[in-house]
Amino acid sequence: MRHFIIASMLAVMSFSSCAASDIVLPQPQKTGGMPLMEALSNRKSTREFSTEKRLSEQQLSDLLWAACGFNREDKLTIPTALNKQEITIYVIAPEGAWLYAAKENKLVEVTTEDVREYSAAQDFAKKAPLNIAIVSDKELMPNDIYAGTDAGAVMQNIYLWCASNGIGTVTRGSFDKDGLAKALNLKPSQRVILVQTVGY
Amino acid sequence: MRHFIIASMLAVMSFSSCAASDIVLPQPQKTGGMPLMEALSNRKSTREFSTEKRLSEQQLSDLLWAACGFNREDKLTIPTALNKQEITIYVIAPEGAWLYAAKENKLVEVTTEDVREYSAAQDFAKKAPLNIAIVSDKELMPNDIYAGTDAGAVMQNIYLWCASNGIGTVTRGSFDKDGLAKALNLKPSQRVILVQTVGY
Repeated sequence: MRHFIIASMLAVMSFSSCAASDIVLPQPQKTGGMPLMEALSNRKSTREFSTEKRLSEQQLSDLLWAACGFNREDKLTIPTALNKQEITIYVIAPEGAWLYAAKENKLVEVTTEDVREYSAAQDFAKKAPLNIAIVSDKELMPNDIYAGTDAGAVMQNIYLWCASNGIGTVTRGSFDKDGLAKALNLKPSQRVILVQTVGY
Repeated sequence: MRHFIIASMLAVMSFSSCAASDIVLPQPQKTGGMPLMEALSNRKSTREFSTEKRLSEQQLSDLLWAACGFNREDKLTIPTALNKQEITIYVIAPEGAWLYAAKENKLVEVTTEDVREYSAAQDFAKKAPLNIAIVSDKELMPNDIYAGTDAGAVMQNIYLWCASNGIGTVTRGSFDKDGLAKALNLKPSQRVILVQTVGY
């Protein structure tokens, strides 16, 4: 199984036509997976992760689409209050961090530094090779409760995708909020609501 | 297809051994359903509902378990911040309102009045035969964001269950918050985060 970052960087270096720092994802598979009730039966939190074994590019694409992708031309896999679509998600890996550009199905580089230390209080999460930051924008969604509900829908999608694929995950509210916002180059109106570790 | 309320009331009147006001649900079916990625593909909001056609008892039991039931002895289908399990859900129907007692798999009556008027601002939702109120407890979860994320996970489970079963749903933050809290006989520390209409 190829590691998505390394494989993608080679692809980008060799033949991608988009900016050198972006990673074009394979098309997400929008069918299949575990029957819903079984995914719900298997939903759980995990707090031990391999520091080595990583998701493939295809798995990452599927996961991000499930989390907060477009399932219609202009609508997401999650509802958002007043359809504000204020949620963005970021991929945090040892090689850097990327914004998931759902419409273009690509990762837009925000840093090439290892910013995992800001994404976690606990060691297991700092060392895990994949964390997903769920970010809200106060300009679009000033209400804390609805910023929470919409982020919570993303969180649950990630949990169910992981349950369906036999992959571990845990969501966390405890991390360096200012440090991570800076590391991800967020706007002042944006804030990280949750960080979710995903892995083997 | 039997209407759950009428059928259940007859069952309660004739041979149930629990309090006359409670409704024992059939065991939820914890397997089957649409493949997860297809449920995510089909997730959407609906704003037109039959005022007549209703979910069966079995569907209601499955829906409530999917939303916020126990998938292990002491853990839920949703994660909750610090495992506080601060969320409770209520069933609102023309005949009254019930607390979903997940462990006992029953509905505990809180009123026999039609309190739908408090659960919605829009007419389509007031007239729909089933609304689910997602309630949080400030004593257990004072933080608005995490009260939101946990309620959002319930919301998304309901959306996915509805997508999987070809049933309409929409979540709403606009309703008479004080009126509904009073109608559901909530403690002062409890508040309704969202109300979700579910139906044909």
